Amino acid sequence: MELLKNHRSVRSYIDRNINDELLLDIIECGIRASNTGNMQLYSVIVTRDNSQKEKLAPLHFNQKMVYSAPVLLTICFDFNRFKKWCLLNGTNTEFSNLLWLLNGVIDSTILAQNICVAAEFNSLGICYLGTTLYNAPEIIEVLKLPLGVIPITALTIGYPDFVPELTDRLPLEAVVHREYYNDYSNEDIQSFYKSKEGLDSSKKFVLENNKSNLAQVYTEVRYKSADSIFFSEKIKNLLLDQGFEL
Amino acid sequence: MELLKNHRSVRSYIDRNINDELLLDIIECGIRASNTGNMQLYSVIVTRDNSQKEKLAPLHFNQKMVYSAPVLLTICFDFNRFKKWCLLNGTNTEFSNLLWLLNGVIDSTILAQNICVAAEFNSLGICYLGTTLYNAPEIIEVLKLPLGVIPITALTIGYPDFVPELTDRLPLEAVVHREYYNDYSNEDIQSFYKSKEGLDSSKKFVLENNKSNLAQVYTEVRYKSADSIFFSEKIKNLLLDQGFEL
Repeated sequence: MELLKNHRSVRSYIDRNINDELLLDIIECGIRASNTGNMQLYSVIVTRDNSQKEKLAPLHFNQKMVYSAPVLLTICFDFNRFKKWCLLNGTNTEFSNLLWLLNGVIDSTILAQNICVAAEFNSLGICYLGTTLYNAPEIIEVLKLPLGVIPITALTIGYPDFVPELTDRLPLEAVVHREYYNDYSNEDIQSFYKSKEGLDSSKKFVLENNKSNLAQVYTEVRYKSADSIFFSEKIKNLLLDQGFEL
Repeated sequence: MELLKNHRSVRSYIDRNINDELLLDIIECGIRASNTGNMQLYSVIVTRDNSQKEKLAPLHFNQKMVYSAPVLLTICFDFNRFKKWCLLNGTNTEFSNLLWLLNGVIDSTILAQNICVAAEFNSLGICYLGTTLYNAPEIIEVLKLPLGVIPITALTIGYPDFVPELTDRLPLEAVVHREYYNDYSNEDIQSFYKSKEGLDSSKKFVLENNKSNLAQVYTEVRYKSADSIFFSEKIKNLLLDQGFEL
């Protein structure tokens, strides 16, 4: 429990490799997790080579942990393998639709999160790369992923150089609802976000970005509508190119 | 590591409640996990009341663990709370697109999987309900979810009555690729699936369903194209009704 409660995303690693036996043991913990119908519609691509990291880093917006981590894992929704098995057995089924995309994202993420817990149990630090979906078409090229294999998320893994402070979370009662969704009044929202808004780091964000409040930093600097619409179209086009019905 | 490697989906629970302090402690482990930009775009709906379970069970195809588990958690992608905070601060951003749907599914699933690990650490058993996406519109009604809150997955949690055998997995080398995706030859596929096909349970499945092989059980009985196309359309319509651009 303490391990889970003390999770930090680690973005800075010492120069120490992860031995292959340990890495495989950690991935084994991932594949033991629940998955839809035990179809295992996922694959894990291990990147250790610097030449590959140099190709992938710009696709992850040059975040420096992509270079410094000994291992980068790209977790993919993969129905290529399963489909090949079906075809060899004279049958087939349809995965190129929204339902299976979402199932595939769920199963890939369950796998990824078990890998994270297992890594942290072994004194490693991890960081998710949300940029994976943004540049999925280019990542597909670098990793030579065939049709039916779509990168969903990626993890940098390594021995921590710097472990940051625990980040804040909303109070648990802001996230948990009993029996029915208890919609928020303005007063609820103000009370739930008060502590986040009051953090020194939040005030610094607001000041540095010349905004009037923290919400504006999120919407006008970090997660702008124009960007999300742009990258959303990009993913959609990738899926349409792959024959998905959306 | 042993905890993760020994995971089984538990579908049968003894008649013993989960005390609220423990349940909240377990959910706390979930919200401490990584999430996109620390925006916490998720909510957890706790179902303990029998009357609610009776409404939800048919939506989960009457799987009996929905009745017998003391707790059912429905994990939702939630941008209603964040959006309310933005609007109170005179700003807004766009979440109703494919990118944020996928981000939301990833973050909800990371939360869900940490809850599973924490539950199992406390001698509880869990089972994912993949049916959540199938009947999301009806679940939204039962749980009174507002616009911007979409059920992604659900978990039954309780003290195990019966712990099944460990289920099989493909060999690790079927899932792990080094540097580049190593596409499968027919011989690879045959070798990777041989052990699964040879299981007594697989042979029983094939016989019971009057099929020639295990792949056919998957494609013609368990996960038929017609069903996935039907439920995919249903999710798409829900998202379009909610104002999503897909």
